[in-house]
Amino acid sequence: MLKIILLIIFITNSFLYADEGMWEPYQMKGLKKELRTSGYNRNVSNVSDLFKHPMSAIVSLGGCSAAFVSDEGLIATNYHCIERGFLQFNSNSETDLFETGFVARTKNAEKRSAPGSRVYVTLESTEITEQVLKNLNDETQDIERAKIIEKNIKEIISMCETSDEIECRVRSFFSGETYKLEKVLKIKDVRLVYAPPAHIGEYGGEIDNWMYPRHTGDFALLRAYTSKDGSSKEFNKDNVPYKSNSFLKISAKGVDEGDFVMVVGYPGRTNRLLTFNEIKYDLEIGFHETVEFLKRGIELIDKNTNDADGSGLKYRGLKSGYENYFKKISGQIDGAENFKLLISEESNWKSFLKFVEKEASKNEKDYLDALLNLVDEQQKESLARSYYGNSVLISQAKRLYRNAVEKEKIDSERKPGYQERDQEKIMNRIKSLDYSFDLKVDKAIFTDRLSVYAKIEPSLRRPTYSKLLKLDSGLNEMNQAVDEIYSSQYKDSESFLKMMEFSLDELNDSTDPLIVFAKKTYEESLEYEKKYEATGARRQLLKSKFIGLLKNYYESSNRQLYADANGTLRVTYGNVAGVSLEDGVRYEPFTRLEGIVQKHTNEEPFDASDKLLKLINNKDYGKYFYEPINSVPVNFLSTLDITNGNSGSATINSKFELVGLAFDGMLETIIADYKYIPQARTISVDSRYLLWTLEKLEKADNILEELTIVN
Amino acid sequence: MLKIILLIIFITNSFLYADEGMWEPYQMKGLKKELRTSGYNRNVSNVSDLFKHPMSAIVSLGGCSAAFVSDEGLIATNYHCIERGFLQFNSNSETDLFETGFVARTKNAEKRSAPGSRVYVTLESTEITEQVLKNLNDETQDIERAKIIEKNIKEIISMCETSDEIECRVRSFFSGETYKLEKVLKIKDVRLVYAPPAHIGEYGGEIDNWMYPRHTGDFALLRAYTSKDGSSKEFNKDNVPYKSNSFLKISAKGVDEGDFVMVVGYPGRTNRLLTFNEIKYDLEIGFHETVEFLKRGIELIDKNTNDADGSGLKYRGLKSGYENYFKKISGQIDGAENFKLLISEESNWKSFLKFVEKEASKNEKDYLDALLNLVDEQQKESLARSYYGNSVLISQAKRLYRNAVEKEKIDSERKPGYQERDQEKIMNRIKSLDYSFDLKVDKAIFTDRLSVYAKIEPSLRRPTYSKLLKLDSGLNEMNQAVDEIYSSQYKDSESFLKMMEFSLDELNDSTDPLIVFAKKTYEESLEYEKKYEATGARRQLLKSKFIGLLKNYYESSNRQLYADANGTLRVTYGNVAGVSLEDGVRYEPFTRLEGIVQKHTNEEPFDASDKLLKLINNKDYGKYFYEPINSVPVNFLSTLDITNGNSGSATINSKFELVGLAFDGMLETIIADYKYIPQARTISVDSRYLLWTLEKLEKADNILEELTIVN
Repeated sequence: MLKIILLIIFITNSFLYADEGMWEPYQMKGLKKELRTSGYNRNVSNVSDLFKHPMSAIVSLGGCSAAFVSDEGLIATNYHCIERGFLQFNSNSETDLFETGFVARTKNAEKRSAPGSRVYVTLESTEITEQVLKNLNDETQDIERAKIIEKNIKEIISMCETSDEIECRVRSFFSGETYKLEKVLKIKDVRLVYAPPAHIGEYGGEIDNWMYPRHTGDFALLRAYTSKDGSSKEFNKDNVPYKSNSFLKISAKGVDEGDFVMVVGYPGRTNRLLTFNEIKYDLEIGFHETVEFLKRGIELIDKNTNDADGSGLKYRGLKSGYENYFKKISGQIDGAENFKLLISEESNWKSFLKFVEKEASKNEKDYLDALLNLVDEQQKESLARSYYGNSVLISQAKRLYRNAVEKEKIDSERKPGYQERDQEKIMNRIKSLDYSFDLKVDKAIFTDRLSVYAKIEPSLRRPTYSKLLKLDSGLNEMNQAVDEIYSSQYKDSESFLKMMEFSLDELNDSTDPLIVFAKKTYEESLEYEKKYEATGARRQLLKSKFIGLLKNYYESSNRQLYADANGTLRVTYGNVAGVSLEDGVRYEPFTRLEGIVQKHTNEEPFDASDKLLKLINNKDYGKYFYEPINSVPVNFLSTLDITNGNSGSATINSKFELVGLAFDGMLETIIADYKYIPQARTISVDSRYLLWTLEKLEKADNILEELTIVN
Repeated sequence: MLKIILLIIFITNSFLYADEGMWEPYQMKGLKKELRTSGYNRNVSNVSDLFKHPMSAIVSLGGCSAAFVSDEGLIATNYHCIERGFLQFNSNSETDLFETGFVARTKNAEKRSAPGSRVYVTLESTEITEQVLKNLNDETQDIERAKIIEKNIKEIISMCETSDEIECRVRSFFSGETYKLEKVLKIKDVRLVYAPPAHIGEYGGEIDNWMYPRHTGDFALLRAYTSKDGSSKEFNKDNVPYKSNSFLKISAKGVDEGDFVMVVGYPGRTNRLLTFNEIKYDLEIGFHETVEFLKRGIELIDKNTNDADGSGLKYRGLKSGYENYFKKISGQIDGAENFKLLISEESNWKSFLKFVEKEASKNEKDYLDALLNLVDEQQKESLARSYYGNSVLISQAKRLYRNAVEKEKIDSERKPGYQERDQEKIMNRIKSLDYSFDLKVDKAIFTDRLSVYAKIEPSLRRPTYSKLLKLDSGLNEMNQAVDEIYSSQYKDSESFLKMMEFSLDELNDSTDPLIVFAKKTYEESLEYEKKYEATGARRQLLKSKFIGLLKNYYESSNRQLYADANGTLRVTYGNVAGVSLEDGVRYEPFTRLEGIVQKHTNEEPFDASDKLLKLINNKDYGKYFYEPINSVPVNFLSTLDITNGNSGSATINSKFELVGLAFDGMLETIIADYKYIPQARTISVDSRYLLWTLEKLEKADNILEELTIVN
């Protein structure tokens, strides 16, 4: 599944493929011809304005996308986007919402969500490149450059965030070539309206994850509430359903093979605008290192956790993230090989270099050389950066020590992340230790990662950190150093919340080995942070020059470039289509209810309920019957270009009706996430399956009545 | 691949599916309506006469099928049917025909075949049930019954075999309900005309065996020669190409999806007319026991052979047979489960029993009960029968001892298999030890099988055999007994050929432990042989009564029954069609040249030559280009019902043109071999790929000119 992963990855300047592109709405105007070719015949201005229907119906859940589907704040998204904040939160030893699913038959019956659950509605989006780069020129020193950008951004945000229901974010487009200010409304009262049982919502589980043919009912419904005056407030009985500017109608007719479809959503992160040395490094080294890191991580969790002491449960989330990412990157390695990516990318890069040779100024060429050198330089440090850290205990202590340092300053002078607006997040992070941290497991993972770090060439390691942890004195000494730190009295949320209250002086006076370690490595950490910020600032300058060249290169053949995904609203369009990835075998565009029965083994993750099986075996298709497949469609494939963060995005037809919810990609073409390939497919759950489930299985008449269902 | 396997297996009385049936030619007249539905619009009498075109062009190679494709004795068959007798025989340290392939540019250049290679042309087929069952009635005692049938058959054969170029076989149809005499011409001079290199002929090897999508060029050409007077003679330079009664034209246009196709060939053995207790036993116990037996066999060969002493090579054939069969039976176990065979068969059996209850006489019902009891009885012995024997050394000695006993009698009185006509076969069997027997390996396999046999309940074991081998005295004693037998001076072809010369008295006087063992177990073996023959005779009677009921049952709903495959010529018809075995995935009917490139890894079995890859990459399709797949078809699927022995069968269109050569089934539906299912598919190599290879890759103009190619 397109789960949001905290670990971060990395497409290129090559020619654009037909359905490639995560477009910013304003760019759609330039894609008139392409949209027509894809079968979109309506006014293009409808799909280029963020604040008009249908885009005004699209929201973010922070990591997932979603869409309003009624004028009373009803929201459709993926099942896998609501598992933690809604199902786990409302389940206990008596009630297991995973097993039963949940249908609110009235608004009163809706379930509230875990603290921090949010719906984000974009209110404004403004280009602010000039303000972010104010007082800068190309000659500004890197460190100075970093400082100025940080200061400018802080000012912009503080001017923007006029109330606590508003969140403002400065987003970098094209690696800092452009900056935009996104002003969003944070809706804080979000409630669960409908979730199918897990045997529908995650049918196929980890086995079918990233796979097709797929039969997952990955859908759920939430509702956004605000106070009566329309302002965003935390859960309150008196709150009223939020009135969105627009909402999507739901199609009971669904799509046909070949139909035009579009996804509007909030893709999290791509890194497609890479230089060739970045691609070469990723494909030949980086991906493999990541896979190794993840594989070992899974092994470490398996070895050091168990169900009896609850540690298994605490690390289930991390492990599942590792596994999902491991499967994805492994799939990308295979895909890069199968689709011979390195060969095509080298040839694309050569064409670009020819253009540069001919069209670029001496100055621009120098910048490009400098960028390539910087990339080479940074690649050397990559392994050390992965294996540095990795102790949640130490990171927590260091964060609190730093917070104490920053708190000595006035708020506007503090480092972002340590301002007053950030204190609640810091506290929530501590509280999250209760269900995601175990001292013994953390120590085991840290020790193992550290033993790899210790083997890295000393010049690439942090000297103070290495010295304090005795990395060059043999395994025994190292283990003793770790033992000492982990003997700290600070080891859970309670003690860390106390530590958060300490002043800098109190921390400096402490003899606790963990605090002492945080103090002794503080200066070095600051030094590295500055170094990285300086390199980051330099990279921003060099990358923005590179993007300039790339834009010229694209323009020279009348093509538009789209910016890497960065959590802002994007549009991708394409068609419903099967795919053949292997001669003689074709993945058909639709899967059918009967496929659920075929896969059913009575054991998780293929444990369909008797009720569901009976409805299918009775061919009780109702009005959702789709003649070409002689059944009700469950999932369908389209050529849309999506990535993590797009999960829950409404898949809409040219009439802007919701025909599905995008929820996954195919492992065989997941390399497209890194670098688009025309065989890439998006898997959506079909609106007909959603409606069939609500009608036949759930008999959720109240929900069906609230939706605007069109034929 | 549909390799012929010596181990033997076992469809049912259920309703017939559209394309089910291995029909005897005469039955085709009754299938007019079905043939029309399948798209065959020509005269049905053309496909119901064994001695008219096209059937007169079909021959057997003994284990494989083949067809004449020119008026000069040219024969098309599968590559995998000629590997041993033609390629291995003509390869040595300097010439590796597997690697190079072989094209005879002139008749003189053709390669002769290994001794014993034969082409069998059916000359006559006569119903002789009455003669076989002469002097018998339903009350004849079992042992007497067996003796009379054996005697009758011997007489029929001896009357029929008027010269040594003629071979006569009495074939049982419907488990002995009908008998036919098949008189065939043995063509003894067969030469190799064309074989592609192994990287085409067995592209995909063991990995792709039983699999689709497939890209195997499983074709080869032979030529039959006779003496100038038309009589069959062994290889001789003066021999001339055989003039067949008819031959098939080759289609360069090939088939389209949905086209009518037919396969005429010699399917080896099926056992589809089973009672439900047979099916239940096979699916729940028998298949699993067989898989276990084969798996252990593969392990034993792996453990006890090596390349250094040549034993690896000697057991390669047996191991590959075990592996092929293991894959097939494992596939059947999975298929039976996936297609819920036991459930449908039970329901079919119940319907049959209802018919029996209503329509059958008391007598017929008693016979059916007796059959069911006999089946139950025999199933108890199945494990003991598998694990008894298994020493090639001992079997060889016992055969020669028996031969000496029989030789004391006049020829007509001897046991079939030990008559004068059989002496050459006995000798060839001894000679084959040179390349398929290793004393150490034989002993290891025997000892392991024996240790399983020893654990079987004593009442199910042979007492003398068990006593002599000390099976109830512990492993040590047993091993000592085996050691003693294997200390024999008879242990290779040379010594066994000597033993073959000994008279019965000489053998009886011998103190060699192997001969002594053969002698001491002789009486018991004879006793068991008689017992099995009696049971066999009883089974024949009871089965023929059962078949009678089954025929009535079928007739009651206007359906024909077809007899189990028994090595006689059969017709199966159907259509070119892909298949979906899993919701959302479709196997397309054709694979393409480009699929070869996709699978190419440069390593066996996916090691396409540069020349082949270049031709494909250059899209040098010539006139064999097939627009719907934008390439040249390599293999195609059809709904034909074939089994082992059909390998090499010509797949022909309604104009009787050769459009392909059938060579395999799909593992997912191989259960159809046991019990037909409508999803079953036959894989054929496309005539366009054969012609493309001959023209583009081999530039074999002489062969292309000899063929009658039609568009």
